[in-house]
Amino acid sequence: MSTTGHTEGIRSIPEPTLRRLPVYYQYVKNHRAQEAHVSCTQIAEALSQKPIQVRKDLEIAGAIGKPRLGYPVAELVDILETFLGYRRVDDAFLVGAGHLGLALLGYEGFKERGLNIVAAFDSDPEKVGHRAHGKEILPIGKLEKLVERMKIPIGILTVPAPEAQRVADLMVGAGIKAIWNFAPVHIHVPEDIIVQHENLASSLVVLSKKLTAKHKEEA
Amino acid sequence: MSTTGHTEGIRSIPEPTLRRLPVYYQYVKNHRAQEAHVSCTQIAEALSQKPIQVRKDLEIAGAIGKPRLGYPVAELVDILETFLGYRRVDDAFLVGAGHLGLALLGYEGFKERGLNIVAAFDSDPEKVGHRAHGKEILPIGKLEKLVERMKIPIGILTVPAPEAQRVADLMVGAGIKAIWNFAPVHIHVPEDIIVQHENLASSLVVLSKKLTAKHKEEA
Repeated sequence: MSTTGHTEGIRSIPEPTLRRLPVYYQYVKNHRAQEAHVSCTQIAEALSQKPIQVRKDLEIAGAIGKPRLGYPVAELVDILETFLGYRRVDDAFLVGAGHLGLALLGYEGFKERGLNIVAAFDSDPEKVGHRAHGKEILPIGKLEKLVERMKIPIGILTVPAPEAQRVADLMVGAGIKAIWNFAPVHIHVPEDIIVQHENLASSLVVLSKKLTAKHKEEA
Repeated sequence: MSTTGHTEGIRSIPEPTLRRLPVYYQYVKNHRAQEAHVSCTQIAEALSQKPIQVRKDLEIAGAIGKPRLGYPVAELVDILETFLGYRRVDDAFLVGAGHLGLALLGYEGFKERGLNIVAAFDSDPEKVGHRAHGKEILPIGKLEKLVERMKIPIGILTVPAPEAQRVADLMVGAGIKAIWNFAPVHIHVPEDIIVQHENLASSLVVLSKKLTAKHKEEA
């Protein structure tokens, strides 16, 4: 068994691999932590993947399994945590304390995956001053100063679509480096700012295309 | 100008294309509806894409632009709505009326994208009997019978991870054909059931890898 954790540039890691690795990590940590070894076949079966895919993905992360034995679980968890950046915690502010914002504030998995939502912001005076999942909801007017003072790198955008660009501009002006955008609208930012769009319409169309294909097969 | 709407099998459409098309549709419908033509360069600039990418994606949907003029807007909207299946509405039940469930219930964009959330279900007696965004919240015990009676094809899963498999089994047993899973856990279903996993941990890792690469560049 030879396992080495090496870090590659983001450009050399295929995004589908990057998206699958946290799923493998989650499975191994939650369901295999008590065992000495786990094989790519076991991971593949549990997650409806192909073993060869799992093996290749884990190899990209720096984990090489041994024939018949597989990967030592503790080492694999360690390699994945390092590779996925879960050991380093980035602070984030969330703007928009509606249902989606509150759902994200309450998401248990972020902290152990390197994301610490420090506080939430909202423009609604009825929400401001309350706490949700232990985080303060602050007035949006305080965002700029606090981003600067606390050097917060990540902004999570959960405001309605018409407000998204204005809030994104505010974030960028204050020094935010990366925006995780859940508003159903494209936002424009300077080239050196990272934006990750979460678009439910894009996921929905994948689901409904598959459903249509299935209807046709059955008809 | 030649534009034809043709439907291809799901297997022949690259998923990245399928995910980008709803974004183009959203932009053209919201920002170009008053104009006669839109070019792939205009769409590309507005959405931080490459024009050649936009052109290829639209071609897969069946839209061919004319040099210098671009695509007639009304025809393009029409082709995309047909191709993306927005003209046919599928009914869905949502299970888990927590913050995330309520956020999805209130998402305005679903209906015009072919998804009609008929009702929500929850096991919490305090939630049952209320309405959220005009939808009834029903007791989970009624799910099975109502799926059967109303022939609901889609189940949206927004329950906590430990309950996800049990509720998915319930859905499948009742006749649900496709599950949109927002619970942060892999669920197991028979081969003929469609599952679309929304995994926030997968998106987060893409964002944080880019942020790490940026930090390194700057250092």
